[in-house]
Amino acid sequence: MTNKDAHTPASVQDAQSEEAGKSIGWHKAYIEGTRPDLRVPVRQVHLTNGQSVTLYDTSGPYTDPLVETDVRRGLPPLRENWIIARGDTEEYAGRPVRPEDDGIKHTSPRGGLRNLDAVFPGRPRQPRRSRDGKAVTQLAYARRGEITPEMEYVAIRENVSPEVVRDEIAAGRAVLPANVNHPEIEPMIIGKRFLVKVNANIGNSAVTSSIEEEVEKMTWATRWGADTVMDLSTGRNIHTTREWVLRNSPVPIGTVPLYQALEKVDGKAEELTWDIYKDTVIEQAEQGVDYMTVHAGVRLPYVPLTANRKTGIVSRGGSIMAAWCLAHHKESFLYENFEELCEILAAYDVTYSLGDGLRPGSIADANDEAQFAELRTLGELNRIAKRFNVQTMIEGPGHVPMHKIKENIDLQQEICDEAPFYTLGPLTTDVAPAYDHITSGIGAAMIAWWGTAMLCYVTPKEHLGLPNRDDVKTGVITYKIAAHAADLAKGHPGAQEWDDALSDARFEFRWEDQFNLALDPDTAREFHDETLPAEPAKTAHFCSMCGPKFCSMKISQDIRREHGGSKAEIEDGMAQKSKEFAASGNRVYLPIAD
Amino acid sequence: MTNKDAHTPASVQDAQSEEAGKSIGWHKAYIEGTRPDLRVPVRQVHLTNGQSVTLYDTSGPYTDPLVETDVRRGLPPLRENWIIARGDTEEYAGRPVRPEDDGIKHTSPRGGLRNLDAVFPGRPRQPRRSRDGKAVTQLAYARRGEITPEMEYVAIRENVSPEVVRDEIAAGRAVLPANVNHPEIEPMIIGKRFLVKVNANIGNSAVTSSIEEEVEKMTWATRWGADTVMDLSTGRNIHTTREWVLRNSPVPIGTVPLYQALEKVDGKAEELTWDIYKDTVIEQAEQGVDYMTVHAGVRLPYVPLTANRKTGIVSRGGSIMAAWCLAHHKESFLYENFEELCEILAAYDVTYSLGDGLRPGSIADANDEAQFAELRTLGELNRIAKRFNVQTMIEGPGHVPMHKIKENIDLQQEICDEAPFYTLGPLTTDVAPAYDHITSGIGAAMIAWWGTAMLCYVTPKEHLGLPNRDDVKTGVITYKIAAHAADLAKGHPGAQEWDDALSDARFEFRWEDQFNLALDPDTAREFHDETLPAEPAKTAHFCSMCGPKFCSMKISQDIRREHGGSKAEIEDGMAQKSKEFAASGNRVYLPIAD
Repeated sequence: MTNKDAHTPASVQDAQSEEAGKSIGWHKAYIEGTRPDLRVPVRQVHLTNGQSVTLYDTSGPYTDPLVETDVRRGLPPLRENWIIARGDTEEYAGRPVRPEDDGIKHTSPRGGLRNLDAVFPGRPRQPRRSRDGKAVTQLAYARRGEITPEMEYVAIRENVSPEVVRDEIAAGRAVLPANVNHPEIEPMIIGKRFLVKVNANIGNSAVTSSIEEEVEKMTWATRWGADTVMDLSTGRNIHTTREWVLRNSPVPIGTVPLYQALEKVDGKAEELTWDIYKDTVIEQAEQGVDYMTVHAGVRLPYVPLTANRKTGIVSRGGSIMAAWCLAHHKESFLYENFEELCEILAAYDVTYSLGDGLRPGSIADANDEAQFAELRTLGELNRIAKRFNVQTMIEGPGHVPMHKIKENIDLQQEICDEAPFYTLGPLTTDVAPAYDHITSGIGAAMIAWWGTAMLCYVTPKEHLGLPNRDDVKTGVITYKIAAHAADLAKGHPGAQEWDDALSDARFEFRWEDQFNLALDPDTAREFHDETLPAEPAKTAHFCSMCGPKFCSMKISQDIRREHGGSKAEIEDGMAQKSKEFAASGNRVYLPIAD
Repeated sequence: MTNKDAHTPASVQDAQSEEAGKSIGWHKAYIEGTRPDLRVPVRQVHLTNGQSVTLYDTSGPYTDPLVETDVRRGLPPLRENWIIARGDTEEYAGRPVRPEDDGIKHTSPRGGLRNLDAVFPGRPRQPRRSRDGKAVTQLAYARRGEITPEMEYVAIRENVSPEVVRDEIAAGRAVLPANVNHPEIEPMIIGKRFLVKVNANIGNSAVTSSIEEEVEKMTWATRWGADTVMDLSTGRNIHTTREWVLRNSPVPIGTVPLYQALEKVDGKAEELTWDIYKDTVIEQAEQGVDYMTVHAGVRLPYVPLTANRKTGIVSRGGSIMAAWCLAHHKESFLYENFEELCEILAAYDVTYSLGDGLRPGSIADANDEAQFAELRTLGELNRIAKRFNVQTMIEGPGHVPMHKIKENIDLQQEICDEAPFYTLGPLTTDVAPAYDHITSGIGAAMIAWWGTAMLCYVTPKEHLGLPNRDDVKTGVITYKIAAHAADLAKGHPGAQEWDDALSDARFEFRWEDQFNLALDPDTAREFHDETLPAEPAKTAHFCSMCGPKFCSMKISQDIRREHGGSKAEIEDGMAQKSKEFAASGNRVYLPIAD
């Protein structure tokens, strides 16, 4: 959206001096809502022609020079007063943090217990949950007709009316993931009626990476536009890493509780129990995880359907549950205890991300019976979750060739009552390891156009290794492209104004504006400077592609001059020319012969 | 295609010893046709399980250790005997090469003339053209019912019958670009019935690059899979660069003669004349250019239609012609002399690539009247070209949002009688300079699925600068992904076998096979080794994503073991399980409540 939109520039508060802003080409600003503590951050890009463009911003307080941030203290609890004011939640002692939560097996000197202070040095906090009988989810509020501050916040962000936000949440067509224990987040919404969102995965593993690295990856991913982040850690310090990520994250955090539960039983899937899983979900809900992937759709009867697949079960969660089912020859404990799980998630407003544990892992396995059998179950679980007022989205594939993509979204929307679809890609071919951000970016753009609400990014390292900082950035940028291409194709109001602003800058040789409006200004500037590094080239009316002697843009500007003076005159003149041409029957000179 | 296809392994001739081949994971092999001098190169990938996969290969003799190549001598003239044997062409003295052909203004000591020897040190040659009255194009042969060696060659390459090739060319639905003066090429075909092709642009400009660099970029691009290469040079040494590129290229070379013609009038568009243009076309046809972009659809009445565009005319050729039309207030000399141009192209079997000089340069300008007015003219020119037996393809956009892409291909196919569409992307958003290989890769995959026959690559440097070696590789790989994704979606016979082979390797932890089957084995191996560099990791039954303790692929293999022994037994057992499940009405455990 640009400043032509609903919110006038007057309501935009600058976060830094004009000088400082201009030096980096953009600055952080805020649009105030109906209350002073409701300030929606935007990225204000200053153009050299004096205009400015306002873009959606996910980077959090880190890009606001007026806010002092300290990863050891965490972000300010933006939503805390809103949550307290509702009066429907209460603090409580919470589950004690145990060494095994961090994958530590031996008993610590303090008798096997650790407290949150030891986990994170920031402000002291106790977990919060619903008071008895209170429905505290955004879905419950929306159904009751209440517009929460969170809903107003996303309405401003999306440039729609709060009523639209409330309607979409109430209908289950959108989710606003916001755990009552994660007051630090800047609210955002996931639904096909809104801008397409992008999730970035981070997480250490048994093989590599540290706590600091993961926090840094999270802020790095949101700096480039990630709307949510999933912490998929599987190794040591899993609890502590998550605490640090949550306390410092301006975006909703998702997890797969099954991963941590498996660590607690030393990686032996068959030793998992409902109690261990439930305890892990409560542990994570108390920390503030906003949405959880739950693979409750991997049912015992579906497991054999995967035996003749090219690549079996490729979802880690899906294969854990399949292994458990097989080991015990019993129905999934997640499926059997789904209603109890709903009660837990409802108490914290944790959003379900119903996992597609049987998603295809190769082109050969796309849209097969195993995949769609699970999808049908997810549709049923979605209805159960709604009974408990739990916000719910549905995860989707995976590896799918282009001609089979639309069936996925159409079927999901039908079976799951239009609940938001959250897809991984899909990857449109298997043959390009090291380029799966691209094989999947293609599928992601298409499925988002057709209705997927959030895209889970894929990095160049997919299938090969853990992403580093560069891979995270490449994954996020690729998926922001897919998401924005879909916003354009869906005709999202305001989406094209960004393209128009950049194309205007391109046509008028405003190089600095092109860079500053780019999804990745740094790389755009760097690439330009590789061939034309000198400062004058930034204002030159040509580029290295054609050189100074001849330039197509220049000729186009001559044409514009040739055919009129003011914009109005041009339009008059051109309309006349067009009419003349049409009147001549659009006839061409040469006779046609077949 | 794999060795399960029509051509049995027996007919595949190895180009190197098994040892040598295994060390690099693949080797060059040949499939022999009906004559000993018709040998179609393929890439034979050796798998560690003893099987092999045969892939399409564009890399030319450079990857055959038994062929000695020398860029100063050029490639062997593979097709020379086929061309001579037809007896319908003759050598002639040819147009003298002038200093101004290379952008040199002063008169040389040798009286302003240079000979081909000075331009290129390789084997002496004279240009060749049709004998009076002879129709020497592949289109003419196809229409007469003749299956040329070139047609048989591409039939083997595409794994279809020669009759299909002949039919498609005769109907104008496919082109086989093969100038009689470019005997070095390995014939290939462009048409929607065949594998989607990728073109890579190279070319020096007034600002940068050298002859050697351009030859190197050409071999580098074909090494990674470019099916054709366009030499878009605009600066000095334009004639000589082209000669070196042609003599060393195993793929068809395309050009835009207008660029060189403009150099000859010192960049002043208004000084262009039909004679200068015609002379340039003959110059390039004599050198062996296989297809030429001709912007004959940019007509005088269409120029005003661009005046109110966001980004005017962005095609270099289009803006040159528009400038000429405006300067003289006359109809385009290309349009007015199109029939004479057809006669020239027919004499050498140069293929038309009818340029879309009015393609949109921004999302805002997509599918506008200027663009479609030109397309209608291209449809008419296509019919004229066909009267002269000139093979023809049609160029397409450009910048187009996803929801407007299909209209482009549908309209082009209708208006241009299914002539092959050759599109640049399209770019699906304007906001990501430095990532336009991705913004356009998305559109390219989609439009190719819907029928585009060849995709012109876009590199990360698009809009910012001239591509270097890395950019060329990234552009080619991205477009090979788009092309292959489209081949899969179109259900091209054999396309999925490549994906299946790679996915089998993935499922069975055959890491070396995954790398060797990858579109870019080098980068895939490098990414894997970043986190698990040790040699044993290449055979490890896990990767760095989940670590050794737990692996989804491993569990899937357990499932396969659990449910049967031999493949037949698994299938029986699974069929039974599936039946049981279906018989139970696919019922799930929990009751559904709305």
